[in-house]
Amino acid sequence: MGMFEFIRNLADQQHERVVPISVFVAILCLCLVIGHLLEDNRWVNESIAAILIGCIAGAVILFLSKGKSSHILRFSEELFFIYLLPPIIFNAGFQVKKKQFFQNFITIMLFGVIGVFISASIITVGSWWLFPKLGFVGLTARDYLAVGTIFSSTDTVCTLQVLHQDETPILYSLVFGEGVVNDATSVVLFNAIQKIDVTRVNSRTILQLIGDFFYLFSTSTALGVTFGLVTAYSLKTLYFGRHSTVRELAIMVLMAYLSYMLAELLELSGILTVFFCGILMSHYAWHNVTESSRITTRHIFAMMSFVAETFIFLYVGMDALDMEKWKMTRVSFGTLMSSFGSIVLLILLGRAASVFPLSAFSNYMNRRPQRSPSLTFKHQVIIWWAGLMRGAVSIALAFKQFTYSGVTWDPVNAAMITNTIIVVLFTTLVFGFLTKPLIYYMLPHRVIDKNDSSVGSKSPKEDMALPLLSFEESVSTNILRAKDSLTMLIERPVYTVHFYWRKFDDTYMRPIFGGPLSSPPEC
Amino acid sequence: MGMFEFIRNLADQQHERVVPISVFVAILCLCLVIGHLLEDNRWVNESIAAILIGCIAGAVILFLSKGKSSHILRFSEELFFIYLLPPIIFNAGFQVKKKQFFQNFITIMLFGVIGVFISASIITVGSWWLFPKLGFVGLTARDYLAVGTIFSSTDTVCTLQVLHQDETPILYSLVFGEGVVNDATSVVLFNAIQKIDVTRVNSRTILQLIGDFFYLFSTSTALGVTFGLVTAYSLKTLYFGRHSTVRELAIMVLMAYLSYMLAELLELSGILTVFFCGILMSHYAWHNVTESSRITTRHIFAMMSFVAETFIFLYVGMDALDMEKWKMTRVSFGTLMSSFGSIVLLILLGRAASVFPLSAFSNYMNRRPQRSPSLTFKHQVIIWWAGLMRGAVSIALAFKQFTYSGVTWDPVNAAMITNTIIVVLFTTLVFGFLTKPLIYYMLPHRVIDKNDSSVGSKSPKEDMALPLLSFEESVSTNILRAKDSLTMLIERPVYTVHFYWRKFDDTYMRPIFGGPLSSPPEC
Repeated sequence: MGMFEFIRNLADQQHERVVPISVFVAILCLCLVIGHLLEDNRWVNESIAAILIGCIAGAVILFLSKGKSSHILRFSEELFFIYLLPPIIFNAGFQVKKKQFFQNFITIMLFGVIGVFISASIITVGSWWLFPKLGFVGLTARDYLAVGTIFSSTDTVCTLQVLHQDETPILYSLVFGEGVVNDATSVVLFNAIQKIDVTRVNSRTILQLIGDFFYLFSTSTALGVTFGLVTAYSLKTLYFGRHSTVRELAIMVLMAYLSYMLAELLELSGILTVFFCGILMSHYAWHNVTESSRITTRHIFAMMSFVAETFIFLYVGMDALDMEKWKMTRVSFGTLMSSFGSIVLLILLGRAASVFPLSAFSNYMNRRPQRSPSLTFKHQVIIWWAGLMRGAVSIALAFKQFTYSGVTWDPVNAAMITNTIIVVLFTTLVFGFLTKPLIYYMLPHRVIDKNDSSVGSKSPKEDMALPLLSFEESVSTNILRAKDSLTMLIERPVYTVHFYWRKFDDTYMRPIFGGPLSSPPEC
Repeated sequence: MGMFEFIRNLADQQHERVVPISVFVAILCLCLVIGHLLEDNRWVNESIAAILIGCIAGAVILFLSKGKSSHILRFSEELFFIYLLPPIIFNAGFQVKKKQFFQNFITIMLFGVIGVFISASIITVGSWWLFPKLGFVGLTARDYLAVGTIFSSTDTVCTLQVLHQDETPILYSLVFGEGVVNDATSVVLFNAIQKIDVTRVNSRTILQLIGDFFYLFSTSTALGVTFGLVTAYSLKTLYFGRHSTVRELAIMVLMAYLSYMLAELLELSGILTVFFCGILMSHYAWHNVTESSRITTRHIFAMMSFVAETFIFLYVGMDALDMEKWKMTRVSFGTLMSSFGSIVLLILLGRAASVFPLSAFSNYMNRRPQRSPSLTFKHQVIIWWAGLMRGAVSIALAFKQFTYSGVTWDPVNAAMITNTIIVVLFTTLVFGFLTKPLIYYMLPHRVIDKNDSSVGSKSPKEDMALPLLSFEESVSTNILRAKDSLTMLIERPVYTVHFYWRKFDDTYMRPIFGGPLSSPPEC
């Protein structure tokens, strides 16, 4: 009887999905418990724990399947880019301390955008020069450009788990902000590289690449800002909370997701869009919902991001023992290891070549009379170190470049995937392991003065002046001030831009889109 | 160059998912806004609005695709049973007023379990007898049994949106509780039917069916209870909130989902498991987390359930205009309509045959001296009416029975799918439309006395007695009471069982698994 078999097939088909999901969810729960128990541990953090648990789970599955396979779910960029990345990036935007983020906006952009360009160029040129010498051949020009981008995307989770927002606010906000902008930049740059004609690389191609990049960057940001403002405005005018808090929450979650999907659909950068949507939502929309919705959204987004992150690290750990890829890699072990070594070297070099010059430039931009440079050498070393780890974005981009839906039959491509996985494992485990001791050594606890590390923090004098500069002042005073501020703009550009943005925000934006009229000290 | 095409293909492949998701999320947002604006409307509720919007969207897509297709996502039971149903049922268990649910436990079980058996028998026998007479032939014995179950699963969302928990607490809790148990019973019964040998239907088969059913029912419940207790216990002992509220939330969400998946994996009823897991979690685990996690969980689960529900109604509306199925149906329009009419008739009849006798039985079980029957005729009519609507579970079960992964090539099967969709649309739109007026007519506002409708509510005397019956009393008093309670058990079984459960809960369960030691009036 056909019907009966149909149903049996259907049941089997359902189990095909049910088994891996169950195993994965169970391992995730285990990760959470272990992460909780390791919370006070000095050496191991959550990401490292998740990767190790993933490796162990991979080994167990490899053993149970008699050496056939180590993973229960194939790594798919779809899963990663459609379901896991959006909550992480949205939450980053939603939870960012906006005031500090915008005060350090230019420095963050320097590190996050120009830094990626520098680092990607060095890695591309370096690998182009080194790989053939090491006997690793077969990559195309586009592949080398992609390699540069793949290994320029940093993963700052390890560092952020060690830095304390209250103890080193500026350092935290720089590392955090750079991490997000860096992710977005790498993905946008990666997509821009896919579009250019690599057969004729000349100065025009480079210009075209940069043009493409800035077009993607600005349109994506504009889309995110639009979505955030529309959500804020509709929440304010319709006031959903009157009837049910559930609708407010649903609208916020769905609009955030829609912004990401729409950006992807328009071939923009979903990451940037959803990041700015998150910033706008927490700046305006969040103030238009009921009290319980405010608490809930904070936690909902943090939880989704947390689960997605743990999921990714587990995944990477499990994928490390993927026998198919190891077998496919026909490159000798020595060549593989030397190419891996050269990539790690190039990462260290590329990061140094971007962080130290850019820090010096940032110190020049943020200069103040009679003050020591705001980014000390120790801070620069920590920023350099924070960007050494490679994570899920690298893996996802590598899969996108070197496989077709997670499968590859080309030995060179397989070797590049293996290389990427080793680099991610090595940097996360070894560098990640050393992060806590390094930071404790560089910034001993209790010694840190809150005002010591300050790219944009206010001096006492400014604190006094700010409340007086309200937007209710008379015109004449404003004109007088305008002269002062022109001087200010030249002397201290970053601070001044931020100051005028706040005035504009208070006068025009908040009355329309919501939010308290006088900025609270931290929001 | 192969690589380039690979990436293009990949991008197209991603878009294949991105477009439907974007459209669906956008329509969902629209639904939320329209539902909010219709909140004060007397006639249209959210489900009806979602179905109508789905129909309109389907028509637009049909028009844009030039008559080819009306749906952007194929209805799949995987989507429904793995992703949409679990949050709805879990939330039902999590938000249920446990005290009233357990006070009315026996009545709810009567309606939800025995009621489904009665109704399914009547619909099976009735359709078996009527369909061939109407010229609708080709269904097997198993199909008829399945039809009985498919049309016995009720959708009480429409009624619950009209009934007010504060005005008619007992009626609300009965309709709500029955709705959940009914869903679970239908699915369990449906699965039990798949297993029996229909070629020899005799009294042994029936007994086997009932045995299978109760085995599934009890094991699923036990699994759910176990999961709930394990979660509560681990939250209490590990106290995740010490380090981060995010882990508490993640553990609760993941464990709930894991309970569902594990039940499905063990071929039990995930619905029942996750329902009881929800009850246990809100009864114990919820008290072991931080204050902000409590607020967040309440809203997170409500939101997920709300979105999933709206999603399903949209889906059903969109699927109604599926041209493929309409074309496949080679049965004449007259036959289709008469079979549809007979199904609606059988639903009305089957529901009446279960509600009225069972209400009488329930009134007998809950009898009290010198009191009028607790379920008045008006209440019985409302309960009868509340169970007339058919919803997503019917559709999902019909797809499971009559299609293979959402596709069918058999005209009889296609006709049954079409029939199910018409029945769901008709009952939700027509009966749902009449629900508000009916209830306003049967239970005029402000006239309802809270103590009037009372299956298990306490009489003033009991209210006085309860606080004295604490577990700290001396043994002798307890023995004396035991005699009294034996009499009580015979006279008023429901109340007594609940009373002893509460004592057990206070003495043994709460100290281990968490929760306030003296039961609050409503929890």
